[in-house]
Amino acid sequence: MIVARNLKWKQVFFYMWKPMLYFLVLSLVIYILHAKFGMKSLSIPFNAVATLSTALAIYLGFKNNSAYDRWWEARKIWGLLVNYSRAWSREILSLSFTAKNDESQEIINWQKKVIYRHIAFVHSLRVFLRIKHPYNQNKTEIYEGSNQYDDIKDFVSAEEFKSFLDKNNPPNYLIQLQSEDLKYAYRKGWISDYRFVRLDETLTEFNNHQGMSERIKNTPMPRPYSFFSRVFVYLHGTLVPFAFIEDLGWLNVPLSLIINFIFLALDTIGERTEDPFENRMDDTPLTAISLTIETNLKEMIGDKNFPKKQKAIEGVVL
Amino acid sequence: MIVARNLKWKQVFFYMWKPMLYFLVLSLVIYILHAKFGMKSLSIPFNAVATLSTALAIYLGFKNNSAYDRWWEARKIWGLLVNYSRAWSREILSLSFTAKNDESQEIINWQKKVIYRHIAFVHSLRVFLRIKHPYNQNKTEIYEGSNQYDDIKDFVSAEEFKSFLDKNNPPNYLIQLQSEDLKYAYRKGWISDYRFVRLDETLTEFNNHQGMSERIKNTPMPRPYSFFSRVFVYLHGTLVPFAFIEDLGWLNVPLSLIINFIFLALDTIGERTEDPFENRMDDTPLTAISLTIETNLKEMIGDKNFPKKQKAIEGVVL
Amino acid sequence: MIVARNLKWKQVFFYMWKPMLYFLVLSLVIYILHAKFGMKSLSIPFNAVATLSTALAIYLGFKNNSAYDRWWEARKIWGLLVNYSRAWSREILSLSFTAKNDESQEIINWQKKVIYRHIAFVHSLRVFLRIKHPYNQNKTEIYEGSNQYDDIKDFVSAEEFKSFLDKNNPPNYLIQLQSEDLKYAYRKGWISDYRFVRLDETLTEFNNHQGMSERIKNTPMPRPYSFFSRVFVYLHGTLVPFAFIEDLGWLNVPLSLIINFIFLALDTIGERTEDPFENRMDDTPLTAISLTIETNLKEMIGDKNFPKKQKAIEGVVL
Amino acid sequence: MIVARNLKWKQVFFYMWKPMLYFLVLSLVIYILHAKFGMKSLSIPFNAVATLSTALAIYLGFKNNSAYDRWWEARKIWGLLVNYSRAWSREILSLSFTAKNDESQEIINWQKKVIYRHIAFVHSLRVFLRIKHPYNQNKTEIYEGSNQYDDIKDFVSAEEFKSFLDKNNPPNYLIQLQSEDLKYAYRKGWISDYRFVRLDETLTEFNNHQGMSERIKNTPMPRPYSFFSRVFVYLHGTLVPFAFIEDLGWLNVPLSLIINFIFLALDTIGERTEDPFENRMDDTPLTAISLTIETNLKEMIGDKNFPKKQKAIEGVVL
Amino acid sequence: MIVARNLKWKQVFFYMWKPMLYFLVLSLVIYILHAKFGMKSLSIPFNAVATLSTALAIYLGFKNNSAYDRWWEARKIWGLLVNYSRAWSREILSLSFTAKNDESQEIINWQKKVIYRHIAFVHSLRVFLRIKHPYNQNKTEIYEGSNQYDDIKDFVSAEEFKSFLDKNNPPNYLIQLQSEDLKYAYRKGWISDYRFVRLDETLTEFNNHQGMSERIKNTPMPRPYSFFSRVFVYLHGTLVPFAFIEDLGWLNVPLSLIINFIFLALDTIGERTEDPFENRMDDTPLTAISLTIETNLKEMIGDKNFPKKQKAIEGVVL
Repeated sequence: MIVARNLKWKQVFFYMWKPMLYFLVLSLVIYILHAKFGMKSLSIPFNAVATLSTALAIYLGFKNNSAYDRWWEARKIWGLLVNYSRAWSREILSLSFTAKNDESQEIINWQKKVIYRHIAFVHSLRVFLRIKHPYNQNKTEIYEGSNQYDDIKDFVSAEEFKSFLDKNNPPNYLIQLQSEDLKYAYRKGWISDYRFVRLDETLTEFNNHQGMSERIKNTPMPRPYSFFSRVFVYLHGTLVPFAFIEDLGWLNVPLSLIINFIFLALDTIGERTEDPFENRMDDTPLTAISLTIETNLKEMIGDKNFPKKQKAIEGVVL
Repeated sequence: MIVARNLKWKQVFFYMWKPMLYFLVLSLVIYILHAKFGMKSLSIPFNAVATLSTALAIYLGFKNNSAYDRWWEARKIWGLLVNYSRAWSREILSLSFTAKNDESQEIINWQKKVIYRHIAFVHSLRVFLRIKHPYNQNKTEIYEGSNQYDDIKDFVSAEEFKSFLDKNNPPNYLIQLQSEDLKYAYRKGWISDYRFVRLDETLTEFNNHQGMSERIKNTPMPRPYSFFSRVFVYLHGTLVPFAFIEDLGWLNVPLSLIINFIFLALDTIGERTEDPFENRMDDTPLTAISLTIETNLKEMIGDKNFPKKQKAIEGVVL
Repeated sequence: MIVARNLKWKQVFFYMWKPMLYFLVLSLVIYILHAKFGMKSLSIPFNAVATLSTALAIYLGFKNNSAYDRWWEARKIWGLLVNYSRAWSREILSLSFTAKNDESQEIINWQKKVIYRHIAFVHSLRVFLRIKHPYNQNKTEIYEGSNQYDDIKDFVSAEEFKSFLDKNNPPNYLIQLQSEDLKYAYRKGWISDYRFVRLDETLTEFNNHQGMSERIKNTPMPRPYSFFSRVFVYLHGTLVPFAFIEDLGWLNVPLSLIINFIFLALDTIGERTEDPFENRMDDTPLTAISLTIETNLKEMIGDKNFPKKQKAIEGVVL
Repeated sequence: MIVARNLKWKQVFFYMWKPMLYFLVLSLVIYILHAKFGMKSLSIPFNAVATLSTALAIYLGFKNNSAYDRWWEARKIWGLLVNYSRAWSREILSLSFTAKNDESQEIINWQKKVIYRHIAFVHSLRVFLRIKHPYNQNKTEIYEGSNQYDDIKDFVSAEEFKSFLDKNNPPNYLIQLQSEDLKYAYRKGWISDYRFVRLDETLTEFNNHQGMSERIKNTPMPRPYSFFSRVFVYLHGTLVPFAFIEDLGWLNVPLSLIINFIFLALDTIGERTEDPFENRMDDTPLTAISLTIETNLKEMIGDKNFPKKQKAIEGVVL
Repeated sequence: MIVARNLKWKQVFFYMWKPMLYFLVLSLVIYILHAKFGMKSLSIPFNAVATLSTALAIYLGFKNNSAYDRWWEARKIWGLLVNYSRAWSREILSLSFTAKNDESQEIINWQKKVIYRHIAFVHSLRVFLRIKHPYNQNKTEIYEGSNQYDDIKDFVSAEEFKSFLDKNNPPNYLIQLQSEDLKYAYRKGWISDYRFVRLDETLTEFNNHQGMSERIKNTPMPRPYSFFSRVFVYLHGTLVPFAFIEDLGWLNVPLSLIINFIFLALDTIGERTEDPFENRMDDTPLTAISLTIETNLKEMIGDKNFPKKQKAIEGVVL
């Protein structure tokens, strides 16, 4: 996520210089053919392009809207994860207790274990989501975060960590372990039947947060939507310099570049935003959120060993 | 669902070559009549078409938006099914137990039966939803998946499978069986009154997921919306070559083809997306999701016999 | 609801022939006055109309969007009714039982009565919602369904049916009876305190489905929205033939008819869709959904006497 | 709420005659100066206005959408109030009972008191919401409803009514009384611990309905949105007659009036709809809904003394 | 939040005078160069700009829509906080009681403490949210509210206040304290196991309200969206005076100023609305809402010492 109000030049053009170069060369070639070689038939009426411009602008509006919705939903899901992480920690601390009205070390250890394992769940979900899809693999990015399962080592036992790495779906495994620990507490008499079920319901929330994130991760915007928007931007952008060459002469070059820059930027914004879990500049800031959760939960159990807050680098938080 | 970033030519034109051919022939005929036979009165002012272009672009924007919402809602529903399938499996494993604080083989068998039957439910819902509607029957598709009730044979008893095939609404029958098995566990004393109801509520979630999917399946976008959008695209597309013939000469042919291609593509995208359960290229990937659920649930009960992951064929996952 | 992919001519023009006739006569008169009587001052500049066209297209886009949302919400509500009807039936069958671990005839009769009464509720809600509003009364429709309270006679006792007909709000009365029967079962010891409340919560769902349907039924789209859209379509449509008469001659007649047909159709689609409970072609298919519920619930209690499935007549399901 | 399909002239022009008069005078003055005094420089190119027209139409589309959402949300909230009022009444009647399996007069009186107090809550919320805001106070309206706290006198004791009038937030006070009466019933043994909490949750729903209504009431659409939309309509409308004066002569007067009427109407519709609790023609029909609830609840306890149904006056229901 | 219907001049131009000055100077310079120095080549065809105008208007429509959604969501969250604050207070008063059917001073004190601490939570959340972000720090505002943690001093003990100030996330700490006090009441026997969990669920609501607010606070609209909208407004605005200079002469100056004013205003409205917790004129009125909650809760426990209601200053409520 970019937090700085102004983007840097490289952040703007890193993903757009190739098509911009194409549009530049194209308009130069047209200008030269038209002005120097007198190929007057290269011109097409402006109206033909204007029709497409409006249609394209509306379509890009729709696409940007959908891309933004995906991004914002991703952020909402991780917001829910923040809220329920705090609630989980609070519930573990206040809903489990011994009959003797006084907390024993045994239950305190158990509470800490369960809360730590939840921190592990959050970090592992971040790592799990940020594994790059094959169809995004060969894309280079300016910024890339570091995400590996080793980040959770401090929060689960060595044994659990080993089984964890073996799993098809590691975060789901951690939720299952939480569930088993609740059954343990129930049998110990630390939680009543009713409080047991209540705590289990919070685990179902985490099932939901994980599954909702996976949905966004694994289901790209329907490809035809983005494929055609790129095709339309190129088709339209290729026609633009033909439409102005008659009236504008050399001004055609900068002016059609500006027009193409705007349409191209509208397309690129959407394309960059629609996949929020790709470990790059435009992501939902999973690392920052994970660290917030870790800090909050540690604070709740009196652990002062807070992680360092992530700093924005060149205005980017990952 | 198409996962490849770029569509193949055949994926683009399979559903559009007929109208494209019509528009090609039309613009050729107009060009020939105008240029060779001098029928100058064939021209209409561009403005008349521009008015329609904007209206049409806005309308197609609305239609694509609605189509995408249907598709994305379908994906959300199946995402919920993923989440609650995991939750169901977890709850069955941790909320049912014997009083003796030690798991007997009897209850382990029961748990496995109930979780397997849920896998059967997921596959059966997929098959049930992908039965083609009469009004889609005579449409040919490039890709079609394989979906038959035999896929669930391994997950229910032979007897249940037989009754299952008899039913009007087979997936609903499986939920009913789950409910009866919960009553059985309650009477056995494996689940308390309260946990019984909690588990039953998860079944209601599955009622919801099934019913929501059926809603999208059985209620097409109001037909007038899609009927008129097709009519408008043809009306508009038929006028386009008349509008440019005066200014453009032979360029009218490629240019009006480009314009018509864009409007036609906008219409086709929506039409292909609006029905996400038709067992074809643009579907919500029910098969892939079903296999994910099967894998996750098997992992949770320690069954290593995972199904093979579906491979993308020509960039398409079904 | 129309299920056929293509509308029939009569379905298109039944609701539009009057204004289309007006626009035809108008453009003919203008053509004759302009061409035969030389009233050249009848022409107005095209630009004046184009400004309105865009504004009108955007406004109709908004209106169609809202109309579709109403229609789709109506369908969602009845989808929920399907889901919770199945859940209700399942819960009644599995959550109520005698202590003796064996079902007596008494409780089976009670379960059947309660499930049958729910079928009655669904049919009665359909009939209740499809009573025509005074302001829709004098509208003729091509297709009208048959909806009368007699449809529920088979599902409640004669006595209940008599009281039912007396009520201000008959469906609400049936929910109240269900509630009383739950109290009866509680006192009989068939359901625990907790299961009693759980079943009662499902009744609250039905309160919601009924009330949500009544909301859409009794609160039309704010009238100014639809009133002005009609006014704008007429104002715009009246100006259109003046705008082209100069350039087009007799072509003005078909061309302005096409343009007006498109705007008129956009307005009509919305107007037809916004009221989904009016017992006509564009309705949410309440009859079909009611019969599905009846079938599903009968299947769940082993009653093979299924209602006949409604056939689509001329592509229309009511 | 207007229920009649067609608005009356006075309903249309009551809120628009002032700006319409301004636009009329303006276009007349321009026409006279241009045609009679030959001030040819008064003309501006149409294109300059067209740019603004599109931007304005899009902006008004956005504003109308938001205004409609507020209005429809208000209706949804009061729809929920209808649903939960019925549920509350049903629950009070079926979830509270004496151990002796037979209803005593004492509990029947208590049930009636609690249901009547709920009717009082509904009426009082209506009155509370319809108190005019200072910034709406000096606006005259064609229709105004009658809303005063005396409407609830019949439904609470004299003593409660006195305290009620004293409160800062009277409806909230009534909910608090309900809560106390539930505690009373719990202590009497009429409701179990679990049913107590269940009924209390329904009260929380009413907290939500009230608070949601207050949110819409107390938080107008961000003023810049509506302020600028008015400013833009005037700026645009002032430019319109300059743009056509060259081509149109005296026709400029009616044509620019029509264009301005449409944009002005689009703005006015939104402005009238965005505040749904102002006791006027465009309100959500709180009075009608309150009377429906009163009727339904009385019917449920066998009280035949129904309030008279509100009649539409000039097509308006308040 | 501005409540006055009309904005004051300074409220309009405080945030727009700089770009307006740029556009003024630009159009003057162009006019002078064109008219006085005869640089006729400065003109560009209007069509080139019109294409951008439509695209820009659509894009700003999308951006304003998203900004408004953020603002309105913020208001909804604080609306929920109002509702559940009332519910919390009501529940504390009616769900906790001693067995002896008569309220002791001890429990009354406890109830007051817990309700007061909730008022502290609300005020502290307001202060916490209104801490300015680094990237907003150097922005000057016309109005700024006063928000400091001292506002909560009256509602918690001195000891709690001291720990509170130490925390990373102070509001979360207060929720945790509430949870501990519930456990205390449970052990005292004032609340049953079931009522304990019910009250704890309300605390989870507050976790949600806090986390949802933090989400909006800490996650700005994706920067590319707002960055490019500013860039496009400047690019477009810079082209505008070139497009009219040919036709308009000196009129170009006021006319292009009007056009640029409108596009600039559309951009500024969105930018001002998208961040609702920045302690400034366009904020969600957190202070007013906090005071409402304080008043309501005090009224519920009979404390007459209401805070003063915040007055609108120059039509602004903070």
